[in-house]
Amino acid sequence: MTTQPDRTRRPFVIEDAIALLSRTPSTLDALLRGLPDDWIAATEGGDTWSPFDVIGHLIHGERTDWMPRAKIILEHGEAKPFEKFDRLAQFAASEGRTLASLLDEFAALRQGNLRALESLHLTDADLGRRGRHPALGDVTLRQLLATWVAHDLDHVMQVSRVLARQYSEEVGPWRAYLRIISGTQG
Amino acid sequence: MTTQPDRTRRPFVIEDAIALLSRTPSTLDALLRGLPDDWIAATEGGDTWSPFDVIGHLIHGERTDWMPRAKIILEHGEAKPFEKFDRLAQFAASEGRTLASLLDEFAALRQGNLRALESLHLTDADLGRRGRHPALGDVTLRQLLATWVAHDLDHVMQVSRVLARQYSEEVGPWRAYLRIISGTQG
Repeated sequence: MTTQPDRTRRPFVIEDAIALLSRTPSTLDALLRGLPDDWIAATEGGDTWSPFDVIGHLIHGERTDWMPRAKIILEHGEAKPFEKFDRLAQFAASEGRTLASLLDEFAALRQGNLRALESLHLTDADLGRRGRHPALGDVTLRQLLATWVAHDLDHVMQVSRVLARQYSEEVGPWRAYLRIISGTQG
Repeated sequence: MTTQPDRTRRPFVIEDAIALLSRTPSTLDALLRGLPDDWIAATEGGDTWSPFDVIGHLIHGERTDWMPRAKIILEHGEAKPFEKFDRLAQFAASEGRTLASLLDEFAALRQGNLRALESLHLTDADLGRRGRHPALGDVTLRQLLATWVAHDLDHVMQVSRVLARQYSEEVGPWRAYLRIISGTQG
């Protein structure tokens, strides 16, 4: 007898994480590069982010969040809390930039960070090492790297949603069938 | 004085719709091709769909939904209701296929459909023509094409979410920050 595998959860495996992380720049590039400016600047209202803002945010994460925090865990453990991440840094940093140049920069930074990650040859023991998040407290390196993956996908989801909702009125009665517009999650 | 543009809504413009529709196959290809099989078969539990199921569904839409319905509107107007769309067709049609072959087929079908769409040289009057949806009643060609765009993005969002939620446990305390996992939409 075989038991049905659980298809709703995967254990963290570093090779899988790298496979997923390496796909984000090309996914966002395929989705966004060359779109008319009004779509790149689209938002969900208020202080929600546009696709342009999201790419700047991902760049800032490559520079200050994921690999820098991984190194803090490996070098200092819980003794040195992570720097607080600046969620608004991209608004100044991306000013005057083109989307194309941001996509290029994100791809280059990600490639460099994944090379650095691979060169660490992390063991299971390494992945279990602990660091200190300034708000969340104790976290493991495994949790940090799993979060990097999920955070990428969260922003791919966000960009898709921002774009789709531009047609909230234009879809007419189909609105009822489109969860991306009606706001109900599957 | 200039008024601030509304960044939350775009009017339907056929060139924009084609720009968006042409990006979906390469976006999903970048995100999925070559991922380990367990990720391609991942679901959100119950009868929710995997990335593999979604690509089969998009193929079925290319064959039976969007352009066939556009042609019914242009040729028959409200006199001929659309065929009901089979939301489960992919489960038989994709059986035994590889993800790579499904991605190739989706890209080829989409390219052909966009060529056919462009060759119609639709006018504003054409876009206002009406058809009859079997459940939703009267709809316009403009609404059908806007829905095609939003439907693509809905499934890009879904695939991102299915993948991210595989790490629902692995992200540990970061779960609180990840809307893609906590289920709250932005």
